[in-house]
Amino acid sequence: MSQTTSKRPLTVLQKNTKKDVIVRLKSEVEYKGKMENVDSYMNLIMTDAEEVNQGKTVGKFGRVIVRGNNVLFIKLENEF
Amino acid sequence: MSQTTSKRPLTVLQKNTKKDVIVRLKSEVEYKGKMENVDSYMNLIMTDAEEVNQGKTVGKFGRVIVRGNNVLFIKLENEF
Amino acid sequence: MSQTTSKRPLTVLQKNTKKDVIVRLKSEVEYKGKMENVDSYMNLIMTDAEEVNQGKTVGKFGRVIVRGNNVLFIKLENEF
Amino acid sequence: MSQTTSKRPLTVLQKNTKKDVIVRLKSEVEYKGKMENVDSYMNLIMTDAEEVNQGKTVGKFGRVIVRGNNVLFIKLENEF
Amino acid sequence: MSQTTSKRPLTVLQKNTKKDVIVRLKSEVEYKGKMENVDSYMNLIMTDAEEVNQGKTVGKFGRVIVRGNNVLFIKLENEF
Amino acid sequence: MSQTTSKRPLTVLQKNTKKDVIVRLKSEVEYKGKMENVDSYMNLIMTDAEEVNQGKTVGKFGRVIVRGNNVLFIKLENEF
Amino acid sequence: MSQTTSKRPLTVLQKNTKKDVIVRLKSEVEYKGKMENVDSYMNLIMTDAEEVNQGKTVGKFGRVIVRGNNVLFIKLENEF
Repeated sequence: MSQTTSKRPLTVLQKNTKKDVIVRLKSEVEYKGKMENVDSYMNLIMTDAEEVNQGKTVGKFGRVIVRGNNVLFIKLENEF
Repeated sequence: MSQTTSKRPLTVLQKNTKKDVIVRLKSEVEYKGKMENVDSYMNLIMTDAEEVNQGKTVGKFGRVIVRGNNVLFIKLENEF
Repeated sequence: MSQTTSKRPLTVLQKNTKKDVIVRLKSEVEYKGKMENVDSYMNLIMTDAEEVNQGKTVGKFGRVIVRGNNVLFIKLENEF
Repeated sequence: MSQTTSKRPLTVLQKNTKKDVIVRLKSEVEYKGKMENVDSYMNLIMTDAEEVNQGKTVGKFGRVIVRGNNVLFIKLENEF
Repeated sequence: MSQTTSKRPLTVLQKNTKKDVIVRLKSEVEYKGKMENVDSYMNLIMTDAEEVNQGKTVGKFGRVIVRGNNVLFIKLENEF
Repeated sequence: MSQTTSKRPLTVLQKNTKKDVIVRLKSEVEYKGKMENVDSYMNLIMTDAEEVNQGKTVGKFGRVIVRGNNVLFIKLENEF
Repeated sequence: MSQTTSKRPLTVLQKNTKKDVIVRLKSEVEYKGKMENVDSYMNLIMTDAEEVNQGKTVGKFGRVIVRGNNVLFIKLENEF
Protein backbone atom coordinates (compact mmCIF):
# COMPACT_ATOMS: atom_id res chain seq x y z
CA MET A 1 0.00 0.00 0.00
CA SER A 2 2.28 2.73 1.26
CA GLN A 3 5.33 1.13 -0.44
CA THR A 4 5.40 3.66 -3.22
CA THR A 5 8.62 4.11 -5.15
CA SER A 6 8.89 7.68 -3.91
CA LYS A 7 9.80 6.45 -0.43
CA ARG A 8 12.54 4.02 -1.45
CA PRO A 9 15.98 4.68 0.06
CA LEU A 10 17.64 5.72 -3.19
CA THR A 11 14.73 7.99 -4.13
CA VAL A 12 14.80 9.67 -0.74
CA LEU A 13 18.54 10.08 -1.11
CA GLN A 14 18.04 11.83 -4.46
CA LYS A 15 15.54 14.21 -2.89
CA ASN A 16 18.14 15.31 -0.38
CA THR A 17 20.68 16.59 -2.85
CA LYS A 18 21.67 20.19 -2.13
CA LYS A 19 21.21 19.51 1.58
CA ASP A 20 23.70 18.99 4.36
CA VAL A 21 24.55 15.37 5.19
CA ILE A 22 27.07 13.40 7.20
CA VAL A 23 28.58 10.49 5.30
CA ARG A 24 30.32 7.80 7.32
CA LEU A 25 32.64 5.47 5.47
CA LYS A 26 33.53 1.89 6.40
CA SER A 27 36.84 3.21 7.66
CA GLU A 28 34.85 5.17 10.30
CA VAL A 29 35.94 8.51 8.88
CA GLU A 30 33.08 10.97 8.33
CA TYR A 31 32.48 13.68 5.77
CA LYS A 32 30.17 16.57 6.71
CA GLY A 33 28.98 18.94 4.05
CA LYS A 34 26.51 19.59 1.28
CA MET A 35 25.54 16.59 -0.83
CA GLU A 36 25.71 18.28 -4.21
CA ASN A 37 24.62 15.14 -6.04
CA VAL A 38 24.44 11.36 -5.66
CA ASP A 39 23.75 8.37 -7.91
CA SER A 40 22.17 4.96 -7.31
CA TYR A 41 25.53 3.40 -6.45
CA MET A 42 25.87 6.06 -3.71
CA ASN A 43 28.76 7.75 -5.47
CA LEU A 44 28.37 11.30 -4.23
CA ILE A 45 29.70 14.81 -4.77
CA MET A 46 30.10 16.83 -1.62
CA THR A 47 30.94 20.51 -1.42
CA ASP A 48 32.32 22.50 1.49
CA ALA A 49 33.01 19.26 3.29
CA GLU A 50 34.94 18.58 6.46
CA GLU A 51 36.66 15.28 7.11
CA VAL A 52 36.14 14.21 10.70
CA ASN A 53 38.07 11.41 12.35
CA GLN A 54 37.17 10.46 15.91
CA GLY A 55 35.55 13.82 16.55
CA LYS A 56 38.38 15.94 15.11
CA THR A 57 38.32 17.83 11.83
CA VAL A 58 41.30 16.51 9.89
CA GLY A 59 40.66 17.96 6.44
CA LYS A 60 38.64 20.35 4.33
CA PHE A 61 37.32 19.77 0.84
CA GLY A 62 35.90 22.37 -1.50
CA ARG A 63 34.55 19.61 -3.72
CA VAL A 64 35.08 15.89 -3.46
CA ILE A 65 33.64 12.78 -5.16
CA VAL A 66 33.32 9.81 -2.81
CA ARG A 67 33.14 6.33 -4.40
CA GLY A 68 29.88 4.75 -3.29
CA ASN A 69 31.16 1.33 -2.28
CA ASN A 70 32.98 2.87 0.67
CA VAL A 71 29.81 4.31 2.24
CA LEU A 72 28.51 2.90 5.52
CA PHE A 73 25.64 5.33 6.00
CA ILE A 74 24.43 8.80 5.06
CA LYS A 75 22.79 10.82 7.79
CA LEU A 76 20.14 13.13 6.35
CA GLU A 77 18.60 16.30 7.64
CA ASN A 78 15.72 15.41 9.84
CA GLU A 79 12.68 16.98 8.20
CA PHE A 80 10.83 15.00 5.51
CA MET B 1 3.72 -25.89 -1.71
CA SER B 2 4.05 -23.32 1.04
CA GLN B 3 7.00 -21.64 -0.76
CA THR B 4 4.94 -18.73 -1.94
CA THR B 5 6.73 -15.54 -2.90
CA SER B 6 4.98 -13.71 -0.09
CA LYS B 7 7.14 -15.49 2.47
CA ARG B 8 10.52 -14.80 0.85
CA PRO B 9 13.02 -12.89 3.00
CA LEU B 10 12.96 -9.72 0.94
CA THR B 11 9.16 -9.72 0.77
CA VAL B 12 8.87 -10.16 4.52
CA LEU B 13 11.37 -7.37 4.96
CA GLN B 14 9.22 -5.07 2.81
CA LYS B 15 6.17 -5.89 4.93
CA ASN B 16 7.99 -4.70 8.01
CA THR B 17 8.59 -1.15 6.87
CA LYS B 18 7.28 1.38 9.36
CA LYS B 19 8.10 -1.03 12.19
CA ASP B 20 10.90 -1.03 14.71
CA VAL B 21 13.95 -3.13 13.86
CA ILE B 22 17.49 -3.67 15.04
CA VAL B 23 20.04 -3.67 12.24
CA ARG B 24 23.44 -5.16 12.97
CA LEU B 25 26.25 -4.29 10.61
CA LYS B 26 29.34 -6.38 9.84
CA SER B 27 31.30 -4.03 12.06
CA GLU B 28 29.13 -5.28 14.99
CA VAL B 29 27.58 -1.85 15.52
CA GLU B 30 23.78 -1.88 15.78
CA TYR B 31 21.11 0.60 14.77
CA LYS B 32 17.77 0.49 16.60
CA GLY B 33 14.85 2.44 15.24
CA LYS B 34 12.01 2.53 12.77
CA MET B 35 12.70 1.01 9.36
CA GLU B 36 11.09 3.71 7.26
CA ASN B 37 11.83 1.89 4.02
CA VAL B 38 14.09 -0.76 2.52
CA ASP B 39 14.97 -2.04 -0.96
CA SER B 40 16.01 -5.43 -2.30
CA TYR B 41 19.70 -4.68 -1.79
CA MET B 42 18.87 -4.06 1.91
CA ASN B 43 19.65 -0.36 1.63
CA LEU B 44 17.40 1.06 4.34
CA ILE B 45 16.13 4.33 5.75
CA MET B 46 15.84 4.40 9.49
CA THR B 47 14.23 7.15 11.54
CA ASP B 48 14.65 7.95 15.23
CA ALA B 49 17.55 5.53 15.34
CA GLU B 50 20.09 4.90 18.07
CA GLU B 51 23.56 3.63 17.32
CA VAL B 52 24.59 1.00 19.84
CA ASN B 53 28.12 -0.28 20.23
CA GLN B 54 28.78 -3.07 22.72
CA GLY B 55 25.59 -2.28 24.65
CA LYS B 56 26.13 1.49 24.84
CA THR B 57 24.22 4.13 22.89
CA VAL B 58 26.90 6.09 21.03
CA GLY B 59 24.81 8.15 18.63
CA LYS B 60 21.35 9.33 17.62
CA PHE B 61 19.99 9.71 14.13
CA GLY B 62 16.83 11.50 13.11
CA ARG B 63 17.04 9.93 9.68
CA VAL B 64 19.81 7.82 8.20
CA ILE B 65 20.29 5.75 5.04
CA VAL B 66 22.37 2.62 5.60
CA ARG B 67 24.05 1.06 2.55
CA GLY B 68 22.80 -2.50 2.27
CA ASN B 69 26.10 -4.29 1.70
CA ASN B 70 27.14 -3.51 5.27
CA VAL B 71 24.18 -5.35 6.83
CA LEU B 72 24.74 -8.55 8.82
CA PHE B 73 21.16 -9.07 9.94
CA ILE B 74 17.89 -7.24 10.59
CA LYS B 75 15.96 -8.26 13.66
CA LEU B 76 12.24 -7.85 13.11
CA GLU B 77 9.38 -7.43 15.50
CA ASN B 78 8.20 -10.83 16.53
CA GLU B 79 4.59 -11.06 15.36
CA PHE B 80 3.89 -12.24 11.81
CA MET C 1 22.35 -38.97 -14.95
CA SER C 2 21.57 -38.41 -11.30
CA GLN C 3 22.37 -34.67 -11.59
CA THR C 4 18.74 -33.62 -11.54
CA THR C 5 17.92 -30.05 -10.57
CA SER C 6 16.03 -31.31 -7.53
CA LYS C 7 19.31 -32.21 -5.83
CA ARG C 8 21.09 -28.91 -6.39
CA PRO C 9 22.26 -27.10 -3.24
CA LEU C 10 19.82 -24.22 -3.53
CA THR C 11 16.90 -26.55 -4.26
CA VAL C 12 17.73 -28.73 -1.28
CA LEU C 13 18.00 -25.59 0.83
CA GLN C 14 14.50 -24.54 -0.27
CA LYS C 15 13.13 -27.96 0.71
CA ASN C 16 14.41 -27.45 4.22
CA THR C 17 12.42 -24.33 5.00
CA LYS C 18 10.37 -24.72 8.18
CA LYS C 19 13.07 -26.98 9.61
CA ASP C 20 15.72 -26.36 12.22
CA VAL C 21 19.14 -25.36 10.94
CA ILE C 22 22.41 -23.99 12.26
CA VAL C 23 23.76 -21.08 10.22
CA ARG C 24 27.41 -20.19 10.68
CA LEU C 25 28.52 -16.79 9.47
CA LYS C 26 31.98 -15.79 8.29
CA SER C 27 32.47 -14.09 11.63
CA GLU C 28 32.21 -17.57 13.22
CA VAL C 29 29.02 -16.65 15.09
CA GLU C 30 26.22 -19.21 14.72
CA TYR C 31 22.45 -18.89 14.61
CA LYS C 32 20.36 -21.90 15.63
CA GLY C 33 16.66 -21.91 14.93
CA LYS C 34 13.94 -22.54 12.40
CA MET C 35 14.71 -21.51 8.82
CA GLU C 36 11.39 -19.89 8.04
CA ASN C 37 12.40 -19.09 4.49
CA VAL C 38 15.46 -18.63 2.26
CA ASP C 39 16.20 -17.29 -1.21
CA SER C 40 18.80 -18.13 -3.84
CA TYR C 41 21.24 -15.54 -2.47
CA MET C 42 20.99 -17.37 0.91
CA ASN C 43 19.22 -14.44 2.54
CA LEU C 44 17.21 -16.23 5.21
CA ILE C 45 14.51 -15.62 7.79
CA MET C 46 15.01 -17.47 11.02
CA THR C 47 12.53 -17.69 13.87
CA ASP C 48 13.11 -18.60 17.49
CA ALA C 49 16.81 -18.32 16.92
CA GLU C 50 19.70 -18.34 19.34
CA GLU C 51 22.96 -16.60 18.64
CA VAL C 52 25.88 -18.75 19.72
CA ASN C 53 29.44 -17.47 20.00
CA GLN C 54 32.18 -19.94 20.93
CA GLY C 55 29.66 -22.33 22.48
CA LYS C 56 27.76 -19.73 24.51
CA THR C 57 24.29 -18.39 23.78
CA VAL C 58 24.73 -14.64 23.52
CA GLY C 59 21.37 -13.57 22.09
CA LYS C 60 17.83 -14.57 21.26
CA PHE C 61 15.84 -13.61 18.20
CA GLY C 62 12.12 -14.02 17.68
CA ARG C 63 12.56 -13.31 14.01
CA VAL C 64 15.65 -12.21 12.14
CA ILE C 65 16.64 -11.77 8.50
CA VAL C 66 20.27 -12.65 7.81
CA ARG C 67 21.88 -11.16 4.66
CA GLY C 68 23.08 -14.06 2.54
CA ASN C 69 26.57 -12.84 1.71
CA ASN C 70 27.61 -13.32 5.33
CA VAL C 71 26.83 -17.05 5.37
CA LEU C 72 29.63 -19.60 5.67
CA PHE C 73 27.47 -22.70 5.85
CA ILE C 74 24.00 -23.93 6.76
CA LYS C 75 23.81 -27.19 8.64
CA LEU C 76 20.63 -29.04 7.78
CA GLU C 77 18.72 -31.69 9.63
CA ASN C 78 20.13 -35.02 8.72
CA GLU C 79 17.30 -36.92 7.02
CA PHE C 80 16.73 -36.46 3.29
CA MET D 1 41.81 -29.20 -29.70
CA SER D 2 41.62 -31.07 -26.44
CA GLN D 3 39.86 -28.11 -24.75
CA THR D 4 36.48 -29.76 -24.79
CA THR D 5 33.83 -28.50 -22.41
CA SER D 6 33.81 -31.86 -20.67
CA LYS D 7 37.20 -31.12 -19.11
CA ARG D 8 36.39 -27.66 -17.74
CA PRO D 9 36.78 -27.23 -13.97
CA LEU D 10 33.08 -26.86 -13.24
CA THR D 11 32.18 -29.83 -15.42
CA VAL D 12 34.77 -32.02 -13.75
CA LEU D 13 33.45 -30.86 -10.40
CA GLN D 14 29.94 -31.92 -11.39
CA LYS D 15 31.22 -35.37 -12.37
CA ASN D 16 32.60 -35.85 -8.90
CA THR D 17 29.32 -35.52 -7.04
CA LYS D 18 28.68 -38.51 -4.78
CA LYS D 19 32.40 -38.86 -4.21
CA ASP D 20 34.56 -37.98 -1.24
CA VAL D 21 36.26 -34.60 -1.33
CA ILE D 22 38.14 -32.26 0.95
CA VAL D 23 36.95 -28.67 0.78
CA ARG D 24 39.25 -26.00 2.15
CA LEU D 25 37.73 -22.62 2.89
CA LYS D 26 39.51 -19.25 2.86
CA SER D 27 39.48 -19.40 6.66
CA GLU D 28 41.79 -22.48 6.34
CA VAL D 29 39.18 -24.78 7.90
CA GLU D 30 38.57 -27.98 5.95
CA TYR D 31 35.50 -30.12 5.41
CA LYS D 32 36.01 -33.81 4.55
CA GLY D 33 33.09 -35.84 3.36
CA LYS D 34 30.88 -36.81 0.45
CA MET D 35 30.09 -34.05 -2.04
CA GLU D 36 26.41 -34.80 -2.45
CA ASN D 37 25.94 -32.03 -4.98
CA VAL D 38 27.51 -28.79 -6.22
CA ASP D 39 26.51 -25.91 -8.49
CA SER D 40 28.47 -23.57 -10.76
CA TYR D 41 28.98 -21.05 -7.97
CA MET D 42 30.64 -23.88 -5.95
CA ASN D 43 27.82 -23.92 -3.43
CA LEU D 44 27.94 -27.52 -2.27
CA ILE D 45 26.06 -30.03 -0.16
CA MET D 46 28.26 -32.33 1.84
CA THR D 47 27.12 -35.34 3.81
CA ASP D 48 28.86 -37.21 6.62
CA ALA D 49 31.36 -34.39 6.82
CA GLU D 50 34.06 -33.71 9.35
CA GLU D 51 35.29 -30.22 10.07
CA VAL D 52 39.06 -30.19 10.44
CA ASN D 53 41.02 -27.26 11.82
CA GLN D 54 44.83 -27.49 11.91
CA GLY D 55 44.71 -31.28 11.72
CA LYS D 56 42.09 -31.79 14.42
CA THR D 57 38.47 -32.84 13.88
CA VAL D 58 36.43 -30.10 15.49
CA GLY D 59 32.94 -30.89 14.26
CA LYS D 60 30.69 -33.40 12.51
CA PHE D 61 27.95 -32.67 10.01
CA GLY D 62 25.30 -35.06 8.80
CA ARG D 63 24.43 -32.66 6.02
CA VAL D 64 25.71 -29.16 5.40
CA ILE D 65 25.43 -26.59 2.61
CA VAL D 66 28.59 -24.53 2.14
CA ARG D 67 28.24 -21.15 0.38
CA GLY D 68 30.49 -21.22 -2.64
CA ASN D 69 32.21 -17.87 -2.26
CA ASN D 70 34.04 -19.16 0.82
CA VAL D 71 35.76 -22.00 -1.04
CA LEU D 72 39.53 -21.92 -1.55
CA PHE D 73 39.85 -25.32 -3.21
CA ILE D 74 38.20 -28.70 -3.53
CA LYS D 75 40.46 -31.73 -3.48
CA LEU D 76 39.02 -34.51 -5.60
CA GLU D 77 39.60 -38.22 -5.55
CA ASN D 78 42.55 -38.98 -7.69
CA GLU D 79 41.24 -41.19 -10.49
CA PHE D 80 39.75 -39.58 -13.60
CA MET E 1 13.83 19.24 -11.07
CA SER E 2 17.46 20.22 -10.74
CA GLN E 3 18.54 16.54 -10.90
CA THR E 4 19.78 16.78 -14.43
CA THR E 5 22.19 14.16 -15.66
CA SER E 6 24.87 16.80 -16.14
CA LYS E 7 25.30 17.13 -12.39
CA ARG E 8 25.68 13.41 -11.58
CA PRO E 9 28.93 12.40 -9.87
CA LEU E 10 30.35 10.48 -12.82
CA THR E 11 29.45 13.24 -15.26
CA VAL E 12 31.08 15.87 -13.09
CA LEU E 13 34.13 13.63 -12.82
CA GLN E 14 34.34 13.44 -16.61
CA LYS E 15 34.20 17.21 -16.87
CA ASN E 16 37.25 17.48 -14.65
CA THR E 17 39.61 15.54 -16.85
CA LYS E 18 42.76 17.50 -17.64
CA LYS E 19 42.56 19.14 -14.23
CA ASP E 20 44.53 18.58 -11.05
CA VAL E 21 43.01 16.21 -8.51
CA ILE E 22 43.97 14.37 -5.36
CA VAL E 23 42.97 10.71 -5.37
CA ARG E 24 42.89 8.92 -2.04
CA LEU E 25 42.88 5.14 -2.10
CA LYS E 26 41.40 2.81 0.51
CA SER E 27 44.94 2.17 1.69
CA GLU E 28 45.09 5.89 2.67
CA VAL E 29 47.83 6.62 0.15
CA GLU E 30 47.15 9.66 -2.03
CA TYR E 31 48.03 10.51 -5.61
CA LYS E 32 48.25 14.18 -6.59
CA GLY E 33 48.44 15.13 -10.21
CA LYS E 34 46.57 15.75 -13.42
CA MET E 35 43.60 13.47 -14.08
CA GLU E 36 44.30 12.81 -17.74
CA ASN E 37 41.18 10.66 -18.12
CA VAL E 38 38.71 8.60 -16.12
CA ASP E 39 35.94 6.08 -16.83
CA SER E 40 32.66 5.22 -15.10
CA TYR E 41 34.34 2.58 -12.95
CA MET E 42 36.71 5.34 -11.71
CA ASN E 43 39.71 3.75 -13.41
CA LEU E 44 41.87 6.79 -14.04
CA ILE E 45 45.02 7.91 -15.82
CA MET E 46 47.08 10.42 -13.93
CA THR E 47 50.08 12.29 -15.24
CA ASP E 48 52.85 14.06 -13.36
CA ALA E 49 51.58 12.47 -10.18
CA GLU E 50 53.10 12.36 -6.72
CA GLU E 51 52.40 9.55 -4.30
CA VAL E 52 51.88 10.91 -0.81
CA ASN E 53 51.81 8.76 2.29
CA GLN E 54 51.07 10.44 5.61
CA GLY E 55 52.08 13.83 4.31
CA LYS E 56 55.34 12.71 2.67
CA THR E 57 56.00 12.37 -1.05
CA VAL E 58 57.12 8.77 -1.50
CA GLY E 59 57.02 8.41 -5.27
CA LYS E 60 56.70 10.15 -8.61
CA PHE E 61 54.79 8.94 -11.64
CA GLY E 62 55.01 10.33 -15.13
CA ARG E 63 51.89 8.39 -16.08
CA VAL E 64 49.97 5.85 -14.05
CA ILE E 65 46.65 4.01 -14.42
CA VAL E 66 44.88 3.47 -11.10
CA ARG E 67 42.27 0.66 -10.93
CA GLY E 68 38.99 2.24 -9.92
CA ASN E 69 37.93 -0.21 -7.22
CA ASN E 70 40.75 1.03 -5.00
CA VAL E 71 39.50 4.63 -4.95
CA LEU E 72 38.13 6.13 -1.74
CA PHE E 73 37.58 9.65 -3.03
CA ILE E 74 38.72 12.12 -5.67
CA LYS E 75 39.18 15.70 -4.57
CA LEU E 76 38.42 18.09 -7.41
CA GLU E 77 39.47 21.63 -8.06
CA ASN E 78 37.05 23.92 -6.35
CA GLU E 79 35.49 25.99 -9.12
CA PHE E 80 32.41 24.63 -10.94
CA MET F 1 47.33 -4.03 -34.89
CA SER F 2 49.06 -6.78 -33.00
CA GLN F 3 46.25 -6.88 -30.38
CA THR F 4 44.73 -10.05 -31.73
CA THR F 5 42.43 -12.03 -29.49
CA SER F 6 44.87 -14.93 -29.57
CA LYS F 7 47.29 -13.02 -27.35
CA ARG F 8 44.82 -12.00 -24.65
CA PRO F 9 45.62 -13.19 -21.11
CA LEU F 10 42.74 -15.66 -20.86
CA THR F 11 43.46 -17.07 -24.30
CA VAL F 12 47.12 -17.56 -23.50
CA LEU F 13 46.10 -19.20 -20.25
CA GLN F 14 43.90 -21.66 -22.14
CA LYS F 15 46.80 -22.54 -24.44
CA ASN F 16 48.87 -23.53 -21.45
CA THR F 17 46.57 -26.26 -20.18
CA LYS F 18 48.40 -29.55 -19.73
CA LYS F 19 51.55 -27.67 -18.84
CA ASP F 20 53.26 -27.09 -15.52
CA VAL F 21 52.41 -23.87 -13.73
CA ILE F 22 52.86 -22.25 -10.34
CA VAL F 23 49.68 -20.70 -8.98
CA ARG F 24 50.05 -18.20 -6.17
CA LEU F 25 46.96 -17.39 -4.15
CA LYS F 26 46.20 -14.15 -2.30
CA SER F 27 47.07 -15.97 0.90
CA GLU F 28 50.66 -16.29 -0.49
CA VAL F 29 50.43 -20.09 -0.61
CA GLU F 30 51.55 -21.58 -3.93
CA TYR F 31 50.46 -24.62 -5.88
CA LYS F 32 52.94 -26.19 -8.29
CA GLY F 33 51.76 -28.78 -10.74
CA LYS F 34 50.09 -29.48 -14.06
CA MET F 35 47.26 -27.13 -15.03
CA GLU F 36 44.86 -29.75 -16.31
CA ASN F 37 42.26 -27.16 -17.25
CA VAL F 38 41.18 -23.59 -16.55
CA ASP F 39 38.16 -21.39 -17.30
CA SER F 40 37.72 -17.67 -17.87
CA TYR F 41 37.12 -17.04 -14.17
CA MET F 42 40.55 -18.67 -13.51
CA ASN F 43 38.96 -21.63 -11.76
CA LEU F 44 41.53 -24.34 -12.45
CA ILE F 45 42.10 -28.05 -12.11
CA MET F 46 45.60 -28.99 -11.12
CA THR F 47 47.03 -32.49 -11.04
CA ASP F 48 50.08 -33.81 -9.22
CA ALA F 49 50.27 -30.57 -7.34
CA GLU F 50 52.40 -29.56 -4.40
CA GLU F 51 51.32 -26.93 -1.92
CA VAL F 52 54.23 -24.68 -1.01
CA ASN F 53 54.18 -22.26 1.88
CA GLN F 54 57.22 -20.01 2.43
CA GLY F 55 59.42 -22.34 0.44
CA LYS F 56 58.33 -25.57 2.13
CA THR F 57 56.14 -28.27 0.62
CA VAL F 58 53.23 -28.62 3.01
CA GLY F 59 50.82 -30.77 1.02
CA LYS F 60 50.33 -32.96 -2.03
CA PHE F 61 47.28 -33.12 -4.26
CA GLY F 62 46.53 -35.73 -6.86
CA ARG F 63 43.79 -33.53 -8.26
CA VAL F 64 42.45 -30.26 -6.94
CA ILE F 65 40.06 -27.57 -8.18
CA VAL F 66 41.08 -24.06 -7.11
CA ARG F 67 38.35 -21.38 -7.09
CA GLY F 68 39.48 -18.61 -9.40
CA ASN F 69 38.77 -15.61 -7.20
CA ASN F 70 41.59 -16.65 -4.87
CA VAL F 71 44.27 -16.47 -7.57
CA LEU F 72 46.96 -13.79 -7.41
CA PHE F 73 48.98 -14.94 -10.39
CA ILE F 74 49.77 -17.95 -12.54
CA LYS F 75 53.36 -18.42 -13.59
CA LEU F 76 53.57 -20.12 -16.96
CA GLU F 77 56.30 -22.08 -18.59
CA ASN F 78 58.58 -19.71 -20.37
CA GLU F 79 58.39 -20.67 -24.04
CA PHE F 80 55.60 -19.21 -26.19
CA MET G 1 34.69 17.37 -26.69
CA SER G 2 38.14 16.03 -26.01
CA GLN G 3 36.71 12.96 -24.21
CA THR G 4 37.29 10.66 -27.12
CA THR G 5 37.25 6.94 -26.50
CA SER G 6 40.88 6.72 -27.58
CA LYS G 7 42.00 8.45 -24.38
CA ARG G 8 40.04 6.28 -21.91
CA PRO G 9 42.12 4.44 -19.30
CA LEU G 10 41.53 0.96 -20.69
CA THR G 11 42.23 2.09 -24.24
CA VAL G 12 45.48 3.75 -23.21
CA LEU G 13 46.40 0.60 -21.32
CA GLN G 14 45.86 -1.48 -24.47
CA LYS G 15 48.12 0.85 -26.43
CA ASN G 16 50.93 0.19 -24.02
CA THR G 17 51.15 -3.54 -24.55
CA LYS G 18 54.66 -4.64 -25.46
CA LYS G 19 56.06 -1.87 -23.30
CA ASP G 20 57.68 -1.93 -19.88
CA VAL G 21 55.41 -1.27 -16.93
CA ILE G 22 55.45 -1.50 -13.16
CA VAL G 23 52.37 -3.17 -11.72
CA ARG G 24 51.68 -2.65 -8.04
CA LEU G 25 49.25 -5.04 -6.37
CA LYS G 26 47.05 -4.33 -3.36
CA SER G 27 49.50 -6.37 -1.32
CA GLU G 28 52.12 -3.67 -2.12
CA VAL G 29 54.28 -6.12 -4.06
CA GLU G 30 55.36 -4.83 -7.48
CA TYR G 31 56.02 -6.54 -10.77
CA LYS G 32 58.38 -4.85 -13.24
CA GLY G 33 58.59 -6.10 -16.77
CA LYS G 34 57.06 -6.09 -20.22
CA MET G 35 53.26 -5.98 -20.38
CA GLU G 36 52.82 -8.57 -23.10
CA ASN G 37 49.04 -8.17 -23.08
CA VAL G 38 46.15 -6.95 -20.94
CA ASP G 39 42.35 -7.15 -21.00
CA SER G 40 39.59 -4.83 -19.79
CA TYR G 41 39.51 -6.51 -16.39
CA MET G 42 43.25 -5.66 -16.07
CA ASN G 43 44.24 -9.32 -16.20
CA LEU G 44 47.72 -9.06 -17.68
CA ILE G 45 50.53 -11.16 -19.07
CA MET G 46 53.98 -9.97 -18.13
CA THR G 47 57.24 -11.29 -19.50
CA ASP G 48 60.76 -11.00 -18.10
CA ALA G 49 59.27 -9.71 -14.88
CA GLU G 50 60.87 -9.06 -11.54
CA GLU G 51 58.93 -9.23 -8.31
CA VAL G 52 59.93 -6.40 -6.01
CA ASN G 53 58.98 -6.22 -2.36
CA GLN G 54 60.00 -3.14 -0.38
CA GLY G 55 62.70 -2.28 -2.85
CA LYS G 56 64.21 -5.77 -3.07
CA THR G 57 63.92 -8.17 -6.01
CA VAL G 58 62.42 -11.31 -4.55
CA GLY G 59 61.54 -13.28 -7.66
CA LYS G 60 61.89 -13.57 -11.41
CA PHE G 61 59.23 -14.59 -13.88
CA GLY G 62 59.74 -15.53 -17.49
CA ARG G 63 56.02 -15.25 -18.09
CA VAL G 64 53.25 -14.67 -15.59
CA ILE G 65 49.51 -13.95 -15.75
CA VAL G 66 48.32 -11.60 -13.00
CA ARG G 67 44.59 -11.66 -12.12
CA GLY G 68 43.26 -8.15 -12.64
CA ASN G 69 41.32 -7.74 -9.40
CA ASN G 70 44.58 -7.65 -7.46
CA VAL G 71 45.94 -4.62 -9.31
CA LEU G 72 46.34 -1.30 -7.50
CA PHE G 73 47.97 0.62 -10.32
CA ILE G 74 49.99 0.20 -13.49
CA LYS G 75 52.79 2.68 -14.08
CA LEU G 76 53.30 3.29 -17.78
CA GLU G 77 56.24 4.53 -19.72
CA ASN G 78 56.11 8.27 -19.79
CA GLU G 79 55.82 9.21 -23.47
CA PHE G 80 52.37 9.35 -25.07
